[in-house]
Amino acid sequence: MEVVGEEVSNKQIILKEYVSGFPKESDMVLKTGTIRLQLPDDSKNAILVKNLYLSCDPYMRGRMRKMEDSYVESFTPGSPIIGYGVARVLDSGHPNFKKDDLVWGMTGWEEYSVIKAPENVFKIQNTNVPLSYYTGILGMAGMTAYAGFYELCSPKQGEYVFISAASGAVGQLVGQFAKLLGCYVVGSAGTNEKVDLLKNKFGFDEAFNYKEEDLEAALKRYFPNGIDIYFENVGGKMLDAVLVNMRLRGRIAVCGMISQYNLEQPEGVHNLFCLITKRVRMEGFIVFDYYHMYPKFLDMILPHIKEGKITYVEDIAEGLESAPAALVGIFAGHNVGKQVVVVARE
Amino acid sequence: MEVVGEEVSNKQIILKEYVSGFPKESDMVLKTGTIRLQLPDDSKNAILVKNLYLSCDPYMRGRMRKMEDSYVESFTPGSPIIGYGVARVLDSGHPNFKKDDLVWGMTGWEEYSVIKAPENVFKIQNTNVPLSYYTGILGMAGMTAYAGFYELCSPKQGEYVFISAASGAVGQLVGQFAKLLGCYVVGSAGTNEKVDLLKNKFGFDEAFNYKEEDLEAALKRYFPNGIDIYFENVGGKMLDAVLVNMRLRGRIAVCGMISQYNLEQPEGVHNLFCLITKRVRMEGFIVFDYYHMYPKFLDMILPHIKEGKITYVEDIAEGLESAPAALVGIFAGHNVGKQVVVVARE
Repeated sequence: MEVVGEEVSNKQIILKEYVSGFPKESDMVLKTGTIRLQLPDDSKNAILVKNLYLSCDPYMRGRMRKMEDSYVESFTPGSPIIGYGVARVLDSGHPNFKKDDLVWGMTGWEEYSVIKAPENVFKIQNTNVPLSYYTGILGMAGMTAYAGFYELCSPKQGEYVFISAASGAVGQLVGQFAKLLGCYVVGSAGTNEKVDLLKNKFGFDEAFNYKEEDLEAALKRYFPNGIDIYFENVGGKMLDAVLVNMRLRGRIAVCGMISQYNLEQPEGVHNLFCLITKRVRMEGFIVFDYYHMYPKFLDMILPHIKEGKITYVEDIAEGLESAPAALVGIFAGHNVGKQVVVVARE
Repeated sequence: MEVVGEEVSNKQIILKEYVSGFPKESDMVLKTGTIRLQLPDDSKNAILVKNLYLSCDPYMRGRMRKMEDSYVESFTPGSPIIGYGVARVLDSGHPNFKKDDLVWGMTGWEEYSVIKAPENVFKIQNTNVPLSYYTGILGMAGMTAYAGFYELCSPKQGEYVFISAASGAVGQLVGQFAKLLGCYVVGSAGTNEKVDLLKNKFGFDEAFNYKEEDLEAALKRYFPNGIDIYFENVGGKMLDAVLVNMRLRGRIAVCGMISQYNLEQPEGVHNLFCLITKRVRMEGFIVFDYYHMYPKFLDMILPHIKEGKITYVEDIAEGLESAPAALVGIFAGHNVGKQVVVVARE
């Protein structure tokens, strides 16, 4: 147990420089500093936390380059990576948090962090599920799937739903939400192991390995009547193949475009005229805008998890030292399910 | 005056073959046949009309190629071009129409046509405006502007609106609708004459010649705070430039993509990731789906026209013989305002 006020060592994963192309493990470095386990007296509203679980998410690629005027700030070279995580509060200057609270939200890739503005840090109330779930299904990824599917896709029973990067943290949930609603659900993924997971673990009706298929033909085969809802996680060629296979008045929720994040110049998408011929609505979204729905989301998802109606697969990396490889791995599709890094198990 | 039952000559504009690349006048040919000015006894539900005004519209390019599974049928090589027009009924087998009714709707590019299924033919009730207006502002183009702007763009007073191909039949109206609502409105067009028209005739706040500008920089100059609403008529590079200049929660109504219609392979659009960062909604539409709103539209627009609050500019070509050049011209931007062909002035 940490002693308040004690000075301890603090391992950190530091971003060395802004990254171009695919990120590499060597873009990050492990450093060991020290931290005093007490907030200074003038730390009004800050909290000091011990990090337990860290989340590896595709959007983090954007923060590894110099961006201006984007929806999230760039990381600072020389400082720790920042991301979602689960942590325990050791000291608090914020009225909403007290010592020993469990929380999830934006934290640093280090053993201990001072979170200066914990406005988007959520207190964990339900601890009868694995705590790591708050890095994904009960955190940002879960809210992303929930908001993107229910708020943007206007889903109806019996509709035809396609999800790319479907075995990832968000995709696996969207597919299960769609199945619960009585939709026909197909997912794509990049290995046969993931395809198997989609069909046999998450209950997708069909799934295919996008690396082994002509995308347009595969979609035509799985959706002879067209796609009502496309949950977009990848962009590029897949989007082009989807556009020609959309159904009249289809909807595309644009959640991410991971296939484009490591390119210098994004690929061109050629089939946008289909938006007109099929009267398709395509809408981008960011989970930040929907966090006010978090309590409602929990009310919905917790019973489903407890009753086993929703399954969740994590890919766990042990130790902060393994974090760079885990993060780099998601851009090569190495993770099977939600990529989590364990920093400490309390 | 035509005599019922008389046999008369009937000039027709025939599509010779399916077209690739830019259409040429020589893709069409004038032929003169004959027609008897009376419907055969078994022509239940058909009407026989004398064509007065014909409309040249960008969507017609699509019908000049072999298409399957599209929202409109391809033209038939060897048969007359089909398009919107204003006509007078000479004989009717349909309960909704009688001799001497004035109508607008899909008709043939010929002096006299038999319209077999006049379900989408509208009877003209208001004749105290130029009849040619029913090929545009009071017809398909007007309904397109109305539905696209009010139904898809969710416009609000004070918002920043950009319209491409803004001096065309649809664009000039969308801009004026937006001005009536109190929006800031900028349009692009392809000649300085059209730019002048936008600013000095249609009351746009600003306009620019897209051929003389770096598109992204021009949009940044005219929209330092970004674009709330983009009414998309052109696609391609303009869409890419717009995407990076969209404002948070902007809306894009996708009406057409005329810059792409004559290309073998559409250009790639690279900046779709902006849909996510700006939470943009992009939606395609086709006017067919909104014709039930036509009476409501007329109630709105006719008083505006009579009071001079809405201006309308037509580019009139005289005689059916001039129709091929007029149609070809719209894809080169030769028309200034709505392109109409006069077949007969009654």
